[in-house]
Amino acid sequence: MFESASLKHYVDKAVYRREAAKLRQELLNAQYDLMQNGRFPVLMLIAGVEGAGKSETVNLLNEWMDPRHVITSGFFEPSDEERERPAQWRFWRALPPKGKIGIFFGAWHTMPIIQRVMGEINEGEFAREIAEIQRLEKMLCDEGVLLLKYWFHLSKGQQRKRLKELASDPKTRWRVTERDWQYFKLYKKFVKVCDPFLRKTSTGESPWIVVPGANARYRALTVGRHLLAAMRERLAEKPVKRQPDKTPPLAPPPADRLNVLRALELDQPMTKAEYAKELEKWQGRLNVASRDARFRSMSVVAVFEGNDAAGKGGALRRVTGALDSRSYRNVSIAAPTEEERAQPYLWRFWRHLPRHGKFTFFDRSWYGRVLVERVEGFCSEADWMRAYTEINDFEGALLRHGVVMVKFWLTISKDEQFRRFKQREKIAFKRFKITDEDWRNRKKWDAYETAVCDMVDRTSTSLAPWTLVEANNKYHARIKVIKTLCRALEGALERAGKAGKKNKKKK
Amino acid sequence: MFESASLKHYVDKAVYRREAAKLRQELLNAQYDLMQNGRFPVLMLIAGVEGAGKSETVNLLNEWMDPRHVITSGFFEPSDEERERPAQWRFWRALPPKGKIGIFFGAWHTMPIIQRVMGEINEGEFAREIAEIQRLEKMLCDEGVLLLKYWFHLSKGQQRKRLKELASDPKTRWRVTERDWQYFKLYKKFVKVCDPFLRKTSTGESPWIVVPGANARYRALTVGRHLLAAMRERLAEKPVKRQPDKTPPLAPPPADRLNVLRALELDQPMTKAEYAKELEKWQGRLNVASRDARFRSMSVVAVFEGNDAAGKGGALRRVTGALDSRSYRNVSIAAPTEEERAQPYLWRFWRHLPRHGKFTFFDRSWYGRVLVERVEGFCSEADWMRAYTEINDFEGALLRHGVVMVKFWLTISKDEQFRRFKQREKIAFKRFKITDEDWRNRKKWDAYETAVCDMVDRTSTSLAPWTLVEANNKYHARIKVIKTLCRALEGALERAGKAGKKNKKKK
Repeated sequence: MFESASLKHYVDKAVYRREAAKLRQELLNAQYDLMQNGRFPVLMLIAGVEGAGKSETVNLLNEWMDPRHVITSGFFEPSDEERERPAQWRFWRALPPKGKIGIFFGAWHTMPIIQRVMGEINEGEFAREIAEIQRLEKMLCDEGVLLLKYWFHLSKGQQRKRLKELASDPKTRWRVTERDWQYFKLYKKFVKVCDPFLRKTSTGESPWIVVPGANARYRALTVGRHLLAAMRERLAEKPVKRQPDKTPPLAPPPADRLNVLRALELDQPMTKAEYAKELEKWQGRLNVASRDARFRSMSVVAVFEGNDAAGKGGALRRVTGALDSRSYRNVSIAAPTEEERAQPYLWRFWRHLPRHGKFTFFDRSWYGRVLVERVEGFCSEADWMRAYTEINDFEGALLRHGVVMVKFWLTISKDEQFRRFKQREKIAFKRFKITDEDWRNRKKWDAYETAVCDMVDRTSTSLAPWTLVEANNKYHARIKVIKTLCRALEGALERAGKAGKKNKKKK
Repeated sequence: MFESASLKHYVDKAVYRREAAKLRQELLNAQYDLMQNGRFPVLMLIAGVEGAGKSETVNLLNEWMDPRHVITSGFFEPSDEERERPAQWRFWRALPPKGKIGIFFGAWHTMPIIQRVMGEINEGEFAREIAEIQRLEKMLCDEGVLLLKYWFHLSKGQQRKRLKELASDPKTRWRVTERDWQYFKLYKKFVKVCDPFLRKTSTGESPWIVVPGANARYRALTVGRHLLAAMRERLAEKPVKRQPDKTPPLAPPPADRLNVLRALELDQPMTKAEYAKELEKWQGRLNVASRDARFRSMSVVAVFEGNDAAGKGGALRRVTGALDSRSYRNVSIAAPTEEERAQPYLWRFWRHLPRHGKFTFFDRSWYGRVLVERVEGFCSEADWMRAYTEINDFEGALLRHGVVMVKFWLTISKDEQFRRFKQREKIAFKRFKITDEDWRNRKKWDAYETAVCDMVDRTSTSLAPWTLVEANNKYHARIKVIKTLCRALEGALERAGKAGKKNKKKK
């Protein structure tokens, strides 16, 4: 990857002055057009070796363009807020919205590369990190992000010279740390890791651009011109009327009437008295679990999905009734806000992830992508088809971080729904809960059923399985929900306890 | 993944008889339309647990459709031909051409899954295999293949029942082997490996379809109907006039005139006498190396690329002059044949890969994709942009198999090319070597230069680096080529020798 960048590239002052002036003007124009266009964001990753001018370039870009519309984020030590969430969280919250330019100084590649060079992770683990990065970047590109990845390169001799220069000048001495020299000694090892890394994470839609870092003027023109050309090319693209559909059908036309929902016995017995007893028991257990010391290093994310009028809200209230109101947040998902529409669709869920010791309850969730958006045609077939993988990746990131995940689908029969709709229309204080849309959705009952079955098949995992809740009897449904959630949390606490003891023993 | 498939699906005889008759007719029609359309091939992967009806389904599909246009390939123990080539070779040579249906009974997923279940590879190695499969399948889909992946599932109870049935019937007893029972004992482990595998390798363009295997009629209708729906959907797709271009520019507009080609000193000194001496020496060494016993377990692939009239042919003849003519094959790459055009573009190169103990010399190669096809616009920008990764993957597969790879770019100056063109026009027996096309290509000198630099940057790897050959002096060029090739082979022989000794010591 470094063949061209290792040459002695050079731009002289006079040429630079002339070209830079022109480039600045053109970049400003492009930035303005990007805002006007508003259809995509630009995300620049700034990466590479120390001393190759990354930080100077970031400063320069901010100087050249209108800094009010450039969002620069540096990723160094994570904050406590960040440490208590999955590793990707810090990147998601810094994503630029459509129409703006984001600059990431360091990003998701930084840690895996350093860990591999330092021997903290092995080839296999590194391969897994690469695969994750590939999927994350693919998702961003599929969502329309113009992802530009710049790798600043210096030959070993150039880096030695540069670090010495910086270290000898009192004004820049502070910039050269012990760690920079330590990394310098590992120069060859870095190249051995980075060269295949750059090749493997280069794709047609987001290739790494290697920038020779030794000559400040050359590298400034190089990055600026590439950014300009990339923006201009994308801005010139007319929206395509019809994307080619390359997705085959997800499931065969059914050969019988059986599916995971129809296989359920929806009328489960439970009397009011039994319910009251059970509820007291499980609310008590849940409350105890939520105050367990071990819960301070984990969090809970629960998803409530189900037919309209299946009783999601009621079940959720029985859960939160057991909890300290400072420890949980309810997130009700309806149409996205303007800010949310300017981001990849998972962004609105990432932003609500809880810190340690907290619960987040999603009343409807990211599964809207493969349910309502699929059935109503709010997104293309290609979009919801790729969402299964994206959702599995998203939940995988949560699970690896130790988040306890529970996912409920509350099912009622078509008759029971009719009864509840009618009832809601009759009772004044329930009337707000029933709208024309509910009646419209009901007409698409079969399409929703198919979508739910596909969802269950493709997103149930051993650590985050779907719990199908028979909900014709509300008592049964509520108890099943709180019981499942409570047991999941208790199980996680127990495992954490065991792991804690093991670690103590090791010490 | 197995939630729906674990239900007791069932189709009764009368329904089946009626539906199957209809389906057969429709499948035949679709097959005929596929041939007429001729724009894409269908590739069905048949996978899953033993006893779930894979082989019955394959037979049925052959019975239902016109078997002359269905190409069924079973992959069991590799043949000696196959063992001496990279693992993927057997799949490439079985790919169906456009307009036909290929059925792979077992495929690239089979070995990694079994090896993981048996503990022969670890999590990290398995992750790498998955990443490779993802890239291979993405490439096939990008090349237009309609890839349909069927996973035949049985619950543990169903599998036990089925194996017992087969074993108790004298007519089918032979089908149940010791290994089937061994795998059956590992049922849970298989599910634990396969469930995430299926999710990770499901994409929008090629999701796994899980087929419940217990009821023969249900599974036959399921596979047949899905195949039909998928073919019909793709056949109904009209060719898209303009694909959205989502690729940013590959390299910035250059800020100086320097690049890896211009940095070369093209006029290298070498007299005829020196040349004769050197040639004798290196031809001798190459001949010795080619007859080394250790060469019988490796092979050589050499790529000759370069400017028109740079002397590729002449350099190649000096190499082959040192070899037994039975040990090598020259493959000259021009326009693809009709058969080749009906396949993914790398197919025509896979088919020529040498067995152990052999050389293949490519006079022009797969790099045409990122050179002539890019410059002349024979393929879309998205196509050649993704080709860098595809080529790296292709060469990676060769390298992992122990193939010795050498890649030459022969460079001459624009003036030297002019001189040689003129000379060729004058000499009668050389006139066939110069055509109008050569003069046309020459006009695109700069565009080719950019393409070559990108190619060198993005496909030079530590084990398969590009060797840039200064070729204004033919003597120098020929010696550099044969010397580089000879040393690469000698190095590989030496490493093989060391590895051999190590293995002997271990024993």
